[in-house]
Amino acid sequence: MPHIAVDAMSGDFGASTIIRAIASLVKTYPDVVFHLVGALDVLQDGVARARLRGSPQIVLHHASQVVAMDEAPSQALRGKRDSSMHLAIALLRDGQVDAVVSAGNTGALMAMGKVFLRTISGIDRPAIAAFLPTMTGRVLVLDLGANVDCHPEHLLQFAVMGSVLMEQVHGLARPRIGLLNIGSEEIKGNEQVKEAARLLRTSPLHFIGNVEGSDLYRGTADVVVCDGFVGNVALKTSEGLAAMIRHELRAGYTHSWYGRIAYLINRPILQRLRHRLDSRRYNGATLLGLNGIVVKSHGNADRFAFARAVEVAIEEATHRLTLRIAEAIRENLAQTVRDSA
Amino acid sequence: MPHIAVDAMSGDFGASTIIRAIASLVKTYPDVVFHLVGALDVLQDGVARARLRGSPQIVLHHASQVVAMDEAPSQALRGKRDSSMHLAIALLRDGQVDAVVSAGNTGALMAMGKVFLRTISGIDRPAIAAFLPTMTGRVLVLDLGANVDCHPEHLLQFAVMGSVLMEQVHGLARPRIGLLNIGSEEIKGNEQVKEAARLLRTSPLHFIGNVEGSDLYRGTADVVVCDGFVGNVALKTSEGLAAMIRHELRAGYTHSWYGRIAYLINRPILQRLRHRLDSRRYNGATLLGLNGIVVKSHGNADRFAFARAVEVAIEEATHRLTLRIAEAIRENLAQTVRDSA
Repeated sequence: MPHIAVDAMSGDFGASTIIRAIASLVKTYPDVVFHLVGALDVLQDGVARARLRGSPQIVLHHASQVVAMDEAPSQALRGKRDSSMHLAIALLRDGQVDAVVSAGNTGALMAMGKVFLRTISGIDRPAIAAFLPTMTGRVLVLDLGANVDCHPEHLLQFAVMGSVLMEQVHGLARPRIGLLNIGSEEIKGNEQVKEAARLLRTSPLHFIGNVEGSDLYRGTADVVVCDGFVGNVALKTSEGLAAMIRHELRAGYTHSWYGRIAYLINRPILQRLRHRLDSRRYNGATLLGLNGIVVKSHGNADRFAFARAVEVAIEEATHRLTLRIAEAIRENLAQTVRDSA
Repeated sequence: MPHIAVDAMSGDFGASTIIRAIASLVKTYPDVVFHLVGALDVLQDGVARARLRGSPQIVLHHASQVVAMDEAPSQALRGKRDSSMHLAIALLRDGQVDAVVSAGNTGALMAMGKVFLRTISGIDRPAIAAFLPTMTGRVLVLDLGANVDCHPEHLLQFAVMGSVLMEQVHGLARPRIGLLNIGSEEIKGNEQVKEAARLLRTSPLHFIGNVEGSDLYRGTADVVVCDGFVGNVALKTSEGLAAMIRHELRAGYTHSWYGRIAYLINRPILQRLRHRLDSRRYNGATLLGLNGIVVKSHGNADRFAFARAVEVAIEEATHRLTLRIAEAIRENLAQTVRDSA
């Protein structure tokens, strides 16, 4: 019976959107208890409007502060001890909940996670991991921007965590692990990636080798690991290109009366494309490696998108992801010790 | 009157495609002389078929070897002295032509360029530079994969070269230079990028600051500089996403009779999009920083695409790009000396 803490004051659209997202989930997940954290009067108002008053699946926690979107993480750590974000993390740390979901300031969320939850033993740097759509399904990519200047060992740790997530939470028997590189040949890449490839090859993971940027969307891997700088550029570049294509299509369609008619006829096909690529369906990035499940929603998430992020947290909590990662890391370390003996 | 050497044995479609590409340009550029390099009988046959026999704009040079697409650059350097690629580079080195265009092995082309042409004084590492379409026009991006593990000074050199190209060849008064980063704030980025930003800020260039992956396509910068690893990932990721979108659209359209009818009606609008994003229009990456103009075409370029790469070479040769870069570097160095005095 998972308990999920929700930072209800986070995100661009406010508590009412978040509470409506939760309302859309209570029937689907009758065993889950949602702990809404925020200004009590705002929560009570939202709960009433969403017809959730008296629900046994809703618990309210008062927080008098909010972390601002542009607040420096160090500042949030020092000055926002009574924020909805911090209190949600504290509930997780104290074992009152099994996961936290927030649409707030990523840097502050990661900082609070590192300070108050710490990392799983054996993990140096938690990574931001999320799914991208592929031609055959989807791929988990990490790190998407939490860490720059990663060491090769960090990339190996990312791979272990990603593999455990796909195996334990998503039921893949042998998740295929790829390493984001600039060519398929072993000699290609920078020093960090070449050494990471060596570590991955000698690990017990199902490492399929280098994956180029163009292969990300082909679906040849289930998990792709990379430095946070590179991952963030890949993600943002994709978002920018998708935005430009949408812009161009819209321009084409509104250009003329012909365009407008063509648009109506074309709508179902465009909708199919939009559905496939809808980033709202993939909302919910996990801060993998923290000693507790923390899921970050996009700040601009609407009710639908935020609900998807909460579902990510529910799935991971149900399958006890943190515990599974800890076990895998211990096993990996034991393996390495045996190998070097 | 520019002379352009063409590696006619390069590319997937062979000499006949390349010669037809040249044939499409002779009228548009009546002052340009095209030096076709390759197996003489193949050239003569292609020239005859393209009705170029006897044209004063065509000169043939025999080469008995060809560099293979998968050949290691060091091997090509040693063993392919009589290849079309090497002889084209030699023509440039000896001053018989003003530029080289090849659709062959990029690594070999760059290696031959570095060894036989060397780099412009003051440039440590030549970069691969090409245009990407943006919502407002296009942006020059470098380095797209020639160099990994760049030092901050290399990024500054890329910026100088890119700025000169946009100014001298494309007539922009004050090209806006952006630095590919993972956030707009100065504190963001890895060590290399943070130091590069500092160098760019104190340079005489029109540096507009950090540019995120999503901004690449917005058109906020005229030139974006980055490490070759990151640039290659951004480029390849974009190509992969575009391929997936094409795949999804095609699936939607052939799915049903409705889809097929919708496709016919939709075709002009899709064509507009395809035209805007057509990578063939942007074919032709410059190896910026070599002491001579070398343009690399995609291996799979058709007649149209290869002609675009040749036009890039013609433009750059006409505007004496190598000379202009050399001048700008000397000026920059002089400025730096004055500033530190």
